Amino acid sequence: MTLPADDPSCAIPYGLNPLDRRSEKRGNAAELEAARSHPHARAYLLAGDRVLLAGGDDAAAHAPDLARGLGVELATAMLLGWQADGAPRLAGALPAGMEPPAGMEFVDLRSIAAEARVSPGVLGQLAQARSMLAWHARHGFCANCGHATAIAIGGYRRDCPSCAAQHFPRVDPVAIMLVTDGERALLGRQAHFRAGSYSCLAGFVEPGETLEDAVRRETFEEAGIRVGRVRFHASQPWPFVSSLMLGCIGEALSAEIVMDETELEDCRWFPREEVIRMVRGDHPGGLACPPRLAIARHLIEHWLAGG
Amino acid sequence: MTLPADDPSCAIPYGLNPLDRRSEKRGNAAELEAARSHPHARAYLLAGDRVLLAGGDDAAAHAPDLARGLGVELATAMLLGWQADGAPRLAGALPAGMEPPAGMEFVDLRSIAAEARVSPGVLGQLAQARSMLAWHARHGFCANCGHATAIAIGGYRRDCPSCAAQHFPRVDPVAIMLVTDGERALLGRQAHFRAGSYSCLAGFVEPGETLEDAVRRETFEEAGIRVGRVRFHASQPWPFVSSLMLGCIGEALSAEIVMDETELEDCRWFPREEVIRMVRGDHPGGLACPPRLAIARHLIEHWLAGG
Repeated sequence: MTLPADDPSCAIPYGLNPLDRRSEKRGNAAELEAARSHPHARAYLLAGDRVLLAGGDDAAAHAPDLARGLGVELATAMLLGWQADGAPRLAGALPAGMEPPAGMEFVDLRSIAAEARVSPGVLGQLAQARSMLAWHARHGFCANCGHATAIAIGGYRRDCPSCAAQHFPRVDPVAIMLVTDGERALLGRQAHFRAGSYSCLAGFVEPGETLEDAVRRETFEEAGIRVGRVRFHASQPWPFVSSLMLGCIGEALSAEIVMDETELEDCRWFPREEVIRMVRGDHPGGLACPPRLAIARHLIEHWLAGG
Repeated sequence: MTLPADDPSCAIPYGLNPLDRRSEKRGNAAELEAARSHPHARAYLLAGDRVLLAGGDDAAAHAPDLARGLGVELATAMLLGWQADGAPRLAGALPAGMEPPAGMEFVDLRSIAAEARVSPGVLGQLAQARSMLAWHARHGFCANCGHATAIAIGGYRRDCPSCAAQHFPRVDPVAIMLVTDGERALLGRQAHFRAGSYSCLAGFVEPGETLEDAVRRETFEEAGIRVGRVRFHASQPWPFVSSLMLGCIGEALSAEIVMDETELEDCRWFPREEVIRMVRGDHPGGLACPPRLAIARHLIEHWLAGG
């Protein structure tokens, strides 16, 4: 909604989303129907992680007729929110393996971000659509009784007709942290990372745990490093499938790394000068930091800038 | 785990939890069995929101024999983690309506916190137990296919034997914010609050949304106030049933309140001097802020202290 230029979360991919969600309107059947049948309503259409793109400025937003031709009725699509001009934006699911219509293509959400195929504000809407659709795809049944459930309030709830349980889309908070002793940064790599790439450590926040403790626990479990004070920097929605990355800076209280070899392939302390080269892309050994798609990169740059 | 004295989250009820979760050990059947059969393993036993308390210093932690007598086998109980002395702490569910054994009592988790019936570190463990048990109680079936699921890795997963889906306990991130224009705080009350009590606004973070945007959206939806920069203060696990309260300070960009009357009964700007009296308990009109159990109170005190 309001998007001040000085909020670091707005500069992180998937983080900028200008839609007005007006969550209070979803429960009103007339408002919901008005939005879905609005003449300027447009829909994002996703087949799993792949987004249907046409040509033009608003390549990802499709008209009702096109959606209907592909089997998506906007009358039952998810309501993401309203643009500033009042036009609603919806989202619908296409079959996972389908071929694109003539003149269009499917592009996965990571590539769309990396290649800047849509504007940052549309990218945030696609992340919202992807997380919502992925939740519905895996939550057609009631976890409480096993009965089939039905979509409600524009996609923000599923209701069980058998036991009356209400289920809400998940958002999974993840602690992600740049741990530092002041002059060095603790970075690790998993076996599946691009060769030479090192990133921040991260892990899901667990039930009954503070964000701050999750930062300390994950750092100790993965690297054997004790962390004291934790400072929050910025958050990022991560649509694979519906995480909320909570980016923090952690102050190291110990120095000796004891790496969890089931999680990490390598973990090291990198001096500030070396991290600068990894970010700049001229590291003599070819080591690198993640691209700007990842909040890890933003945490690293924030630290390098003195944050 | 590590608990630095200067981390504000450690001073908020349910926020302090000294257990070492060692999440990497849960998936190891031998480690899990060793923990559950450890001679010093003790279990928290909850009937819904009510905790079984005996007398003595460690009133909430019960021996295996007592648990077994009430129908809870520690061999299948949830593994919360290990104490510093190596003794595991477990959690098990009792029938919702049961009477306590002779000499014991059931006390709900809010009263335990408000009356300081256990130490702060044990309170955090009870919050963890409550959130875990509540999730299992409502998630016995696979949301993907409807089949009955089975508990796995000490309670941190449920597995579907039919479609092989894995389900993880939910943690629902909530934005809670003290919105201020510098000299005044925006506080509201819901109809069910104690008479005269005013608190911070709050709401669930939605899929595809940053924490910062959730602060701005909820404040605008509930109070019509535009918020710019958002600063994170501290988090709190809230075990009713498994929320992660993400406490923030929000800078107001507008002044005129337009209240959502379906959510709030009243919403006002309170001058700093009036908030001081509400916190101190000598407000001439009898208005008050929430008790220290709520992170809202900590946000208010942080703001009053110049934060």
